[in-house]
Amino acid sequence: MKFNNHNVFISPHAKIGKNVRIGDNTSIYDNVRIDDNTTIANNCVIGEPLQDYYFSEHYENPETVIKSGALIRSHTVIYSGSEFGENFATGHRITIREYTKFGDNCRVGTLSDIQGYSTFGNHCWLHSNVHIGQKSTIGSFVFIYPYVVFTNDPTPPSDISIGPTVGDYFQIAVFSVLLPGVQIGVHCLVGAGSIVGKDVEDFQLVLGNPAKFVKDVREIKDRKTGEPHYPWPYRFNRNMPWADSGFDYWLNKR
Amino acid sequence: MKFNNHNVFISPHAKIGKNVRIGDNTSIYDNVRIDDNTTIANNCVIGEPLQDYYFSEHYENPETVIKSGALIRSHTVIYSGSEFGENFATGHRITIREYTKFGDNCRVGTLSDIQGYSTFGNHCWLHSNVHIGQKSTIGSFVFIYPYVVFTNDPTPPSDISIGPTVGDYFQIAVFSVLLPGVQIGVHCLVGAGSIVGKDVEDFQLVLGNPAKFVKDVREIKDRKTGEPHYPWPYRFNRNMPWADSGFDYWLNKR
Amino acid sequence: MKFNNHNVFISPHAKIGKNVRIGDNTSIYDNVRIDDNTTIANNCVIGEPLQDYYFSEHYENPETVIKSGALIRSHTVIYSGSEFGENFATGHRITIREYTKFGDNCRVGTLSDIQGYSTFGNHCWLHSNVHIGQKSTIGSFVFIYPYVVFTNDPTPPSDISIGPTVGDYFQIAVFSVLLPGVQIGVHCLVGAGSIVGKDVEDFQLVLGNPAKFVKDVREIKDRKTGEPHYPWPYRFNRNMPWADSGFDYWLNKR
Repeated sequence: MKFNNHNVFISPHAKIGKNVRIGDNTSIYDNVRIDDNTTIANNCVIGEPLQDYYFSEHYENPETVIKSGALIRSHTVIYSGSEFGENFATGHRITIREYTKFGDNCRVGTLSDIQGYSTFGNHCWLHSNVHIGQKSTIGSFVFIYPYVVFTNDPTPPSDISIGPTVGDYFQIAVFSVLLPGVQIGVHCLVGAGSIVGKDVEDFQLVLGNPAKFVKDVREIKDRKTGEPHYPWPYRFNRNMPWADSGFDYWLNKR
Repeated sequence: MKFNNHNVFISPHAKIGKNVRIGDNTSIYDNVRIDDNTTIANNCVIGEPLQDYYFSEHYENPETVIKSGALIRSHTVIYSGSEFGENFATGHRITIREYTKFGDNCRVGTLSDIQGYSTFGNHCWLHSNVHIGQKSTIGSFVFIYPYVVFTNDPTPPSDISIGPTVGDYFQIAVFSVLLPGVQIGVHCLVGAGSIVGKDVEDFQLVLGNPAKFVKDVREIKDRKTGEPHYPWPYRFNRNMPWADSGFDYWLNKR
Repeated sequence: MKFNNHNVFISPHAKIGKNVRIGDNTSIYDNVRIDDNTTIANNCVIGEPLQDYYFSEHYENPETVIKSGALIRSHTVIYSGSEFGENFATGHRITIREYTKFGDNCRVGTLSDIQGYSTFGNHCWLHSNVHIGQKSTIGSFVFIYPYVVFTNDPTPPSDISIGPTVGDYFQIAVFSVLLPGVQIGVHCLVGAGSIVGKDVEDFQLVLGNPAKFVKDVREIKDRKTGEPHYPWPYRFNRNMPWADSGFDYWLNKR
C-alpha cells in the first residue's frame, strides 16, 4: 500500500543500501546514507537541510546516517547531520534536528521533537510527544514517557545552553521536566508532573514541583504482587538484551 | 481548492460511498469503508496498516469504517481496524491507532494522539493535543481539553495495561493526567494541572497533584451570574441532542 | 533540494511577490498574498479555508497576507484570514487558524497550535508546541516556552471566550497555563509548571499551582555571575532592535 514509487524524491547524492523500501511522497535529500534492510514509510523527509541552506549559495548538507534495520513511520522529518544506530524505530510526525546521535535499538514516539545536538545511548524508548532540548546527554535503557521536556536555558532568554545528563535505566513520567544542567544517576525514577531542578542520586524516586526525594526505588512494591518492581530490568525484558539470560548474567558478562 | 484529484491514492479494495470528497495528496488504503456524504481533506492517510504490515508477507488490513457525515481535516493518520460513528470530525494532524471505536457526533482536535484499543461513546469532544493511552474506556458527552493524558502502565515499564474508565458528562482540564485504572463517575470535573490517581465519585470536582476532592460540582458558581454552572448540560446545548427540548426532557424521553 | 517545482499547487487567485520560493508538495490557496523575498518550504498549506468552505457553495477565502522576508518551514498549515508581519519564521508542522495577526520579526516553533482570533506584537518568540486559545492578546518581545497553553473558557463548556492579555517582555516557562481572562503586566515571568488564575503586576515572578507571587524579577540573580538577569533586555539582544544601541538608548529613542 505504501510503496508504489509514487511522488518519491531521492537525491542523486544519497546512498541507499540493499532491501530498502521508501514510501510514497517521501523525500531523501543530499548526503543521506540509509543502510540495508531499512523501511522509510510515506511522506517523510530525511536529510532536512540546516538553517544555512536557505541563506547560503554554497550550502552542503552534512552526512546523515541511518544504520540497518530502521523503521521510520510516516510524516517524519529528520535533519541532516544526525546518526541513528541499528534498528531505529519511530512513530509518526517526529522531528529530529541536526547533530543528534542515537545508539542501537532506540525508539521515538509519535510527535516527539528532538532539538538536536544531543546524544542517546542504546535501547532508549521515547514515548509520544517527548521534547528534548539541545545539549542533552542520555544514557542507555532510558524510558521517557509522553509530554516530558528536557530544558537547557537557566536564565531565559540567554545564549547559554546547559542540557541535563541522565544515567542508565532512568525513567521519567508524563508532564515532567528536567531543568537545565541537572544530573540524574542510574536507575532513577521521576513521578508524573514533576519539575526536577536538583541533581538526583542513583536509585532515587523523586516527585513534585519542585521534585523532592520520596524513597529508594527498590522500596516500591508492585500493586498486585506486593513484590519490589525496581530495578525494573529484573522485571521487564521485552526486546532487552538480557531477555534470554536474565539481567544479572547479562550484566556480569558484558 | 482541496479537491483537484491530484496525487490521490485510493486502494481498489476500499469502498467509497456517495457524495464523498477526497482531498489532494490523500491515500486511502485497503479495506477502508467510507460512507456517504463524507469529506476527507488533503494529505490524509486512512487505513494506515498495523505493525505486521512491515514484517509479514501475507498481511491483510483489517476493516476501517467511517460512517456518514464525517469531516476529516488535513494531515490526519487513521489506522485500520478502527470505527467512527456518524458525523465524526477532526482537526489537523491527528493520529488514531488501531481498534479505536468512536460513537456518533464525536470531534477530535488538532495533533491529538489516540493510541488505539479504546472506546468512546457519543458526543465526545477532544480538544487539541489530547493523548489517550491504550485500553481507555470513555463515556458519552465527555470533554477533554488540550494536553490531557490517559495512562495505563501502573509500574512502568511493564506489559500490564490498565486504562482509565470515565463516566458520562465528564470534563478534564488542560495538563491533567488520569493514572492507570482510575474510575471516574458521571458529571465529574478535573481542574487544570491535576494528576488523578484515585477513583472519583459522581459529581466531584478534584484538583491538584495528587488530585483531591474540592467540592461538589453543583456548588460551582458562574463568575458573572453567580448561578450554578454544573451539571453543565443545563447550561450548554450547542450541537447536543437536548438543544431543542432541554436536558431534563431529553433525559426522561431517552 | 526542496525547490524542484514538484507537486506544487498555486491558486490562480494567489499573489506571489518577487524572489519567492515555494517548496515541493506545497499548496497555496485562493487570495493568499505572499510578499517579496519569502520562502515557503515543502509540504505546506497556506490559505487553508475556513469551516464554511466545506458546507457553502459560495464560499470565498478571506485574504491571507505574508509580508516580506518570511521563512515558513515544512508541513505548516496557515488558515486564510491571517496576517504576518515582516520576517516571520516558523518551525515544522505548525497550525495557525484564521484571523491571527502577528507583528514583525515573530517566530513560531515546531508543532505550535494557534487557534485564531488572536493578536501578537513584534518580536514574539514562541518555542515548540505552544497552544494559544482564541481571543488572546499578546504584546511585543514576548517569549513563550514549550507546552504553554493560553485558555479562554472560564466555565467549560460554554460559549464564552475570554482570552488572556499579556504585556511586553513577558516570559512564560514550560507546562504553564494562563487561565481565561488573566491580565499580565510588563516584564513578568511565570515559572515552569504554573497555573496562573489571577492578574500579575509588572515585574512579578509568579510560580506554582495556583501561581503565587515569589519575588520581583529584578531580584533574580544569574547563577554564575550573581548579577541580576532581569529585566532581560539589558542582558539579551540577539536579533533584538536594541542589539547595537543598548536597551536604554533604544527605549528613549523610540
